[in-house]
Amino acid sequence: MKLYYSPGACSLGIHIILEEIGKPYELSLVALKEGAQHKPEFQAVNPKSKVPALDRGDGRVLTEFPVIAWWLGKSNPEAGLMPTDFEAETRCLEMLDYVCGTIHPQGFTRQFRAANFTPTEADQPKVVEQGKALAAKYFETLEKNWTGGTYVLASGYSVADAALFFVEYWATRRSGMTLPSHLAKHLDAMLARPAVQRALQQEGLPA
Amino acid sequence: MKLYYSPGACSLGIHIILEEIGKPYELSLVALKEGAQHKPEFQAVNPKSKVPALDRGDGRVLTEFPVIAWWLGKSNPEAGLMPTDFEAETRCLEMLDYVCGTIHPQGFTRQFRAANFTPTEADQPKVVEQGKALAAKYFETLEKNWTGGTYVLASGYSVADAALFFVEYWATRRSGMTLPSHLAKHLDAMLARPAVQRALQQEGLPA
Ligand SMILES: N[C@@H](CCC(=O)N[C@@H](CS)C(=O)NCC(=O)O)C(=O)O
Ligand SMILES: N[C@@H](CCC(=O)N[C@@H](CS)C(=O)NCC(=O)O)C(=O)O
Repeated sequence: MKLYYSPGACSLGIHIILEEIGKPYELSLVALKEGAQHKPEFQAVNPKSKVPALDRGDGRVLTEFPVIAWWLGKSNPEAGLMPTDFEAETRCLEMLDYVCGTIHPQGFTRQFRAANFTPTEADQPKVVEQGKALAAKYFETLEKNWTGGTYVLASGYSVADAALFFVEYWATRRSGMTLPSHLAKHLDAMLARPAVQRALQQEGLPA
Repeated sequence: MKLYYSPGACSLGIHIILEEIGKPYELSLVALKEGAQHKPEFQAVNPKSKVPALDRGDGRVLTEFPVIAWWLGKSNPEAGLMPTDFEAETRCLEMLDYVCGTIHPQGFTRQFRAANFTPTEADQPKVVEQGKALAAKYFETLEKNWTGGTYVLASGYSVADAALFFVEYWATRRSGMTLPSHLAKHLDAMLARPAVQRALQQEGLPA
């Protein structure tokens, strides 16, 4: 298997899942800042020009964070990253979707790619502020409705935690945001995991 | 079961799935234009203030289109809306994620809620144009990489089709866009389904 990633991008969450699983895999760098996602070599891998993309080693590539995470969890049951209970699996997917379909694109893409949101350069700081305010609102919604323990699911650690982690990491390391209590504890618990530390180190990111 | 929906919103896709399944369910209107999603009554149902939300009749509400669609497909196997093959199920989720995590929020939310994307009112037409251009690019990506037949999955009709349908419907009915060939055929095939016609009619939408 080969993960197409960019350091510190949302692909970090899939990188963590691969480290948790512990089977051999390769990393392939797609330098987003240099526009490598738009080069023909990468578009042949993922025509959507996005990371993460997972080459599953059978010549078939899977895209979209939630389904990559779900597929890895289901395909590696011995790693215990996907609950076997149907309701817990459902809630796991619900968190993956909220992080990847709302918190990331509406909250953080606004902050990191403000130029894609407004044609007027002078408005970019306002777009960044709006992104921060949205991200804070989404985090508050999660906080108030937290049904997990340390991790997202009451049943324990799962691939959903790797998704929540990457937005928490962005919030605190890149956006200077303060997380509400459950999420701050979740971030700490994630940072204490050896697999998370290995992924951060391999991407050259602060622990 | 009760579906919280707004006429013509993305909840239309879940409405179609419920019509395909054919078991009794209720519809509960959330008038988005009047801000009903922000009222305490609805926030008690879905604190994220979004439709679709599905009250599953056991007092538990499920949110996020991809997982609601997946859950309905899995819970109603006799309806044949979710492939039993693991790889086909994976590709079904991949399409659900692409529509709901990218095409909808990046392409169409820009067009329908331009004011949320720019602080400068005079820039709104440019934001709408950018949304259209992005949606067209995403549709072109799907067209070029189409591996389905009439429907998204080569194995046949699935919940993924109800997701692709709502963005195709928006594109042609609300945005005046022209769809590439596979997608135009897909839209026609969807419109020919009695369940789709019933859902449109119940929401007061043109066929
Ligand atoms: N819907 C995709 C989104 C992935 C995504 O937005 N990836 C970003 C990095 S965090 C990317 O590749 N951006 C490159 C670009 O937009 O040019 C998913 O969930 O995997
Ligand atoms: N991530 C959610 C997004 C749902 C969504 O954006 N719904 C829109 C209608 S198409 C909505 O409820 N908008 C109300 C608002 O933003 O105030 C999902 O996939 O279900």
